[in-house]
Amino acid sequence: MTAPDWIAVDWGTSNLRVWAMTSDGAVLAERASDRGMGTLAPDQFEAAFLDLAEDFLRAGRMTVVVCGMAGARGGWCEAGYVAVPAMPGRGATTRVTAQDPRLDVTILPGLSQADPPDVMRGEETQIAGVLSRFPDFDGVICLPGTHTKWVRVAGGSVREFRTFMTGELYALLSRHSILRLGMDDDWNAVAFAGGVTDGLADPGGLSGALFGLRARGLLQSPRAGETRARLSGLLVGLELAGARSFWDRAGVVVVGDERTRELYGSLTELAADVRFVDAREMTLAGLTSAHADLTGGTE
Amino acid sequence: MTAPDWIAVDWGTSNLRVWAMTSDGAVLAERASDRGMGTLAPDQFEAAFLDLAEDFLRAGRMTVVVCGMAGARGGWCEAGYVAVPAMPGRGATTRVTAQDPRLDVTILPGLSQADPPDVMRGEETQIAGVLSRFPDFDGVICLPGTHTKWVRVAGGSVREFRTFMTGELYALLSRHSILRLGMDDDWNAVAFAGGVTDGLADPGGLSGALFGLRARGLLQSPRAGETRARLSGLLVGLELAGARSFWDRAGVVVVGDERTRELYGSLTELAADVRFVDAREMTLAGLTSAHADLTGGTE
Repeated sequence: MTAPDWIAVDWGTSNLRVWAMTSDGAVLAERASDRGMGTLAPDQFEAAFLDLAEDFLRAGRMTVVVCGMAGARGGWCEAGYVAVPAMPGRGATTRVTAQDPRLDVTILPGLSQADPPDVMRGEETQIAGVLSRFPDFDGVICLPGTHTKWVRVAGGSVREFRTFMTGELYALLSRHSILRLGMDDDWNAVAFAGGVTDGLADPGGLSGALFGLRARGLLQSPRAGETRARLSGLLVGLELAGARSFWDRAGVVVVGDERTRELYGSLTELAADVRFVDAREMTLAGLTSAHADLTGGTE
Repeated sequence: MTAPDWIAVDWGTSNLRVWAMTSDGAVLAERASDRGMGTLAPDQFEAAFLDLAEDFLRAGRMTVVVCGMAGARGGWCEAGYVAVPAMPGRGATTRVTAQDPRLDVTILPGLSQADPPDVMRGEETQIAGVLSRFPDFDGVICLPGTHTKWVRVAGGSVREFRTFMTGELYALLSRHSILRLGMDDDWNAVAFAGGVTDGLADPGGLSGALFGLRARGLLQSPRAGETRARLSGLLVGLELAGARSFWDRAGVVVVGDERTRELYGSLTELAADVRFVDAREMTLAGLTSAHADLTGGTE
């Protein structure tokens, strides 16, 4: 293949993704592995990176731009946080001292907020991607995941954000709580929608509604996929209740995949204007924008 | 010791408790083990019981009255549920066919509710204990635990109830979620009280408030015990928000121990009248009342 000009890296808790990039932002190759930050000690990152991407290297030094949990404490090298309000993915980058002389590695900083206390690491790069795609966007960005972020942006910078543990609560409750008993792997879209409606309308009823799933499993005969889908819906509804000040009367960009469109479909009836964009694409756009910024080039 | 007349048994998911009782309801001896229902297959219950209580037996048959999860599916012998409205701990008891001819074992039924679907097993006996202690009590009984029950009683029967997964959510979040990182074993009473207030005032904010604990741990320096206590407070606050229709303007009896008095102390400022009673005592009073009912005696 054409020799790459630089390498883009999204290194999360569970996954590592690398892209071989040309100088004008085209993707030459893409690879992924499950050697996420959560599986590695600090001195294992360089080898894990080379295992996946060594053949992207050429003679001379190669710029590598990294976002995500690789910059957390216990990661490849701790990168700081930039306090909001701030331009996402800009300022105070961290250079990694690599043993391989071909590597010139930069880790992008996360974002922090003092009150209420909050942090993000990785999503700021997707936000930068959204802003490079929609440069004049003033509104709200929702980034669903293990720790879903709701973010208000204006004038090209992040003004405030809030993290919801929706994905982690779903994983804990579906795998480790009493609700795991009698839960099948199907999905019932009607039960999901009902859960969203109930969770949003009565967030205080969450804890009771959760046990209600178990009781219904004992007393009645839930349809296939009903328990799992209603659980997911209740937690998305709880999140929407908590994030109301973000989406109410706002334009919202939701960053995710096809599944996200299904889980956050109810937003289209709640917010003023909702667009769904692809998470992978936004990550890449954000890393490309950060690369341009680092090397003084234009995107 | 004096020969017992019958044996009272509280067999929960995690613990087994037995009492050697006289015919007039006095306790001759008390024992406990950690061989709860969750640790046993159905054919192991009789041996586990005998291991703990065999020397309570005398020549001839001994009545054994059991409440709790030993009556669940997968327990010693499945005992049914009585649908509310119902007198707690009465009706449709289940006789266990024991191999040891000295044992005459009866398991008390749980309570169920069709809409919203809910179940309890064990708490109905504590409720019967409360009603034997306060025969004319019309009001609300709160039984905190892994699955906290809020129960409305009137005219000696349970009218409705609702289960909140407060204890289980606390265990999951403090042991298995991201919040476990940086959580110490101390307890900060001020942080607990703040959590209760915030959880009750803004249940929709729960998921955001949870991640805020993690972010505060990363950005600031929480005082010892603050994260754990605020987590507990937020979950109790969420429960109180969901149970408002129970405690609002009601007389409430809270069944628990010294710790319960601390965790539910805020109720004294919310409900009309709050009394704390001892859980062990109520269990024993309920089993004694069921025994009297079974044997046609009086308490």
